[in-house]
Amino acid sequence: MSFESLKPIETTKFSDWYLDTCQKAGLFDYSPVRGCMVIKPYGYAIWELISREVDDQIKKRGVQNAYFPVFIPESFISKEKKHVEGFSPELAVVTHAGGELLAEPLVVRPTSETIIYHMFEKWIKSYRDLPLKINQWANVVRWEMRTRPFLRTTEFLWQEGHTAHADEAEATDFTKQILDMYVDLANNFLAMPVLAGNKTETERFAGAKITMSIEAMMGDGKALQLGTSHLLEHSFPEAFGVKFQDKDGNLKSPWCTSWAVTTRLIGAIIMVHGDEKGLALPPKIAPIQVAIVPIKKSGTDTTALDAYVSKIMTALKGAGIRHKLFDDGSTPGQRYHETEMLGIPLRIEVGLRDAEQNSFMVAARKFDPQFGVEKKFTVNFDDTTAENMKAALDKIQKLMYLQAEKFLHVNIFTASCLEELKKGFEQNPGFYEVFYCNGSTCEQALKAIQGTFRVIRGSGEGSNCFGCGHAAKVKVIAAKAY
Amino acid sequence: MSFESLKPIETTKFSDWYLDTCQKAGLFDYSPVRGCMVIKPYGYAIWELISREVDDQIKKRGVQNAYFPVFIPESFISKEKKHVEGFSPELAVVTHAGGELLAEPLVVRPTSETIIYHMFEKWIKSYRDLPLKINQWANVVRWEMRTRPFLRTTEFLWQEGHTAHADEAEATDFTKQILDMYVDLANNFLAMPVLAGNKTETERFAGAKITMSIEAMMGDGKALQLGTSHLLEHSFPEAFGVKFQDKDGNLKSPWCTSWAVTTRLIGAIIMVHGDEKGLALPPKIAPIQVAIVPIKKSGTDTTALDAYVSKIMTALKGAGIRHKLFDDGSTPGQRYHETEMLGIPLRIEVGLRDAEQNSFMVAARKFDPQFGVEKKFTVNFDDTTAENMKAALDKIQKLMYLQAEKFLHVNIFTASCLEELKKGFEQNPGFYEVFYCNGSTCEQALKAIQGTFRVIRGSGEGSNCFGCGHAAKVKVIAAKAY
Repeated sequence: MSFESLKPIETTKFSDWYLDTCQKAGLFDYSPVRGCMVIKPYGYAIWELISREVDDQIKKRGVQNAYFPVFIPESFISKEKKHVEGFSPELAVVTHAGGELLAEPLVVRPTSETIIYHMFEKWIKSYRDLPLKINQWANVVRWEMRTRPFLRTTEFLWQEGHTAHADEAEATDFTKQILDMYVDLANNFLAMPVLAGNKTETERFAGAKITMSIEAMMGDGKALQLGTSHLLEHSFPEAFGVKFQDKDGNLKSPWCTSWAVTTRLIGAIIMVHGDEKGLALPPKIAPIQVAIVPIKKSGTDTTALDAYVSKIMTALKGAGIRHKLFDDGSTPGQRYHETEMLGIPLRIEVGLRDAEQNSFMVAARKFDPQFGVEKKFTVNFDDTTAENMKAALDKIQKLMYLQAEKFLHVNIFTASCLEELKKGFEQNPGFYEVFYCNGSTCEQALKAIQGTFRVIRGSGEGSNCFGCGHAAKVKVIAAKAY
Repeated sequence: MSFESLKPIETTKFSDWYLDTCQKAGLFDYSPVRGCMVIKPYGYAIWELISREVDDQIKKRGVQNAYFPVFIPESFISKEKKHVEGFSPELAVVTHAGGELLAEPLVVRPTSETIIYHMFEKWIKSYRDLPLKINQWANVVRWEMRTRPFLRTTEFLWQEGHTAHADEAEATDFTKQILDMYVDLANNFLAMPVLAGNKTETERFAGAKITMSIEAMMGDGKALQLGTSHLLEHSFPEAFGVKFQDKDGNLKSPWCTSWAVTTRLIGAIIMVHGDEKGLALPPKIAPIQVAIVPIKKSGTDTTALDAYVSKIMTALKGAGIRHKLFDDGSTPGQRYHETEMLGIPLRIEVGLRDAEQNSFMVAARKFDPQFGVEKKFTVNFDDTTAENMKAALDKIQKLMYLQAEKFLHVNIFTASCLEELKKGFEQNPGFYEVFYCNGSTCEQALKAIQGTFRVIRGSGEGSNCFGCGHAAKVKVIAAKAY
């Protein structure tokens, strides 16, 4: 299996590679609970970096964190018709507690709209209370049939934002603002190009009027939905009696949004940037940005080398570079392999001769000489070294985005009819731009060839639907997806 | 009700004051789920400050964060005899999921030792894998009969640390290190004096050989356990088959520790520092350290004042001081009251004349002229102002510790017999140092007068038990407790 070309990897092979990579890098472990995973320290450290960045970004947008109960009375879920239809099959239900049968079963939250709107009903009285912008960092549970580490697990971690606005225009605008924030997160933090836009009707969140999402292309050409931002049906807050008095004294229901990113982002990072050597992490989300591998000859005095390594580490620490010493007595080759498998962006290789010459070798996990990132380069160690290493990390961050962007763009195709699309899925895995009439028959036809609509990319006016050949309404990305 | 004297407040009144203070400050709200609360943004912001500090401290001690499933197979809980006895009455149980009856019910974690040891069994093979130091930030559920916001709720947030060590001495030492870390957190971050030490046998965690705790005195003289650090019975990891090969090739079970602090700390902060005016927050955990209240006369031009306020805020921001503008059009008196109720350490009061004179007035929420913190003082606004405000915040942090320490120490008494202790609880609420034989009859006698043992303070050698008069084993704090 080669990641060298820009051709997607065959899905079955890619799937094996994914699980193997996750486990070798120590990102997760299987748990004794069906569909639930253990996020191991290295995987969790990536989540900490992502969540701190998201948290900073949402706070800049006036969102405040709060915490709501993990249990939701079963009757709450049923209050909004589409919501109950969407989530009922996936619920985990607490029927007993404290040794007794509960009068009303409690659902373990699959998402928190219902309980949050119950609270909004108490908190929102006047237009002065709006907009109300709340976020929660939490675990949620959806009883999934087929699970896969990070991508789809029974329990996962996420942030769920919930806002209430005085009118639809403001709420729609905020839904879009959050989508833009997610696009920026993907591009500039995860080094991940995405397609962003509205979902088609059947792909919307249960209870949403508009669902926007960002979608990335994995190494096998399949799509992964990374984040969603919803404008909810007005009936949703209405079902919970959320009302405010507007400036003229009239009672109205607010317009609400909800939006989320999850630990699934970790899966996306693996599947977008990984390669034959295993994991490859963009510097901004790498728990270890620089690995230091001292090369020691057995039987020689290592005092001078150890002192030199210590000086290098002090310089890296001073520049705020996350680093780790790999000096466990195994061979340099074994440790090189380990740092590569862990996806560490830069590796310092340093022996006694380097210490004497006040220099060291640096190897880049992802490189491109044309972009100014060499596979290996020698660095003279002086006052500017740590800053230069930082600059190299910044460059690798950009390079990894560009490499992923290239892969995405060469694998976006068009298909004018179902037959073409089917052949495309088989021969050239990737995203397919198609025109679509918005009808359910054509969507069923797409599903029959294992495809789904990902995001709307524009109007379909003047074109014909890929399925029925009738007048199209939208231009939309069709793809196989995780 | 007066908080002025050093005499504890009567518990019923204090209890009403507590709920009133929590609600007025917007720290929590009641939820529709029995015993579960909603942590509102202001309360959650305090938890964010605490948890970030704890996270920094545990990472300095080599602990790594990870995440384990919220569900634990029911059979796991039963594997350790004392553990199942301790937790069985408090469990919430998922019996149905995905529309079907589960073959084995799943317990919503009340604590995660069992599932973590199941994973440790996979992760620990050799002495080289030890010590293994893991922490989890999570929600846990214990079905409590009587709940009270922050202090005892069905669901709460916490960190739970779990470590495995090659021998008992190292594990015991780490248990103590964590206790010291919690003492330091309480003293220097929460401005809260505590008594730290071992628990008596019956007060230990279900499955622990040693339980250490830190205990603080609330405003009504009652004790609150703030944090615990346990050395677990060796049988606990053994029950999960956790084994490692030592240097000599022998298979052994490691010694394990677990330790936690929870959202209960927020309750402690309220009950230690609060007063007639409501909440009072030590600067280090105050989401808003400085309130800015502009005083505007209706009908006058506020341009100059607004510009001046903006300059002050820029200076505060530059110094990293968390601040908020209170300028909603209500009277200055109403806004003063609000900032006091929110427990904001410093309030800037500024009018047009102040702007002209390039100065402003500062009011301190907690003050003591003898300690160098005036109730109100004038500040000339220049380049040093923000740093001076920081210095004032540091001083208030120390002052609040000293005020709480004084209260604690004047309310620690001694009692030589049960009758004296009973009278003491009635007439002088507080902590009582008593000598104790370690017998269950005397403990029952203490419980009959609503007391419990909090922490062991030393040997009881040469003294007589408060209960039976026989030879005492330990000197221990007896108190009513939350």
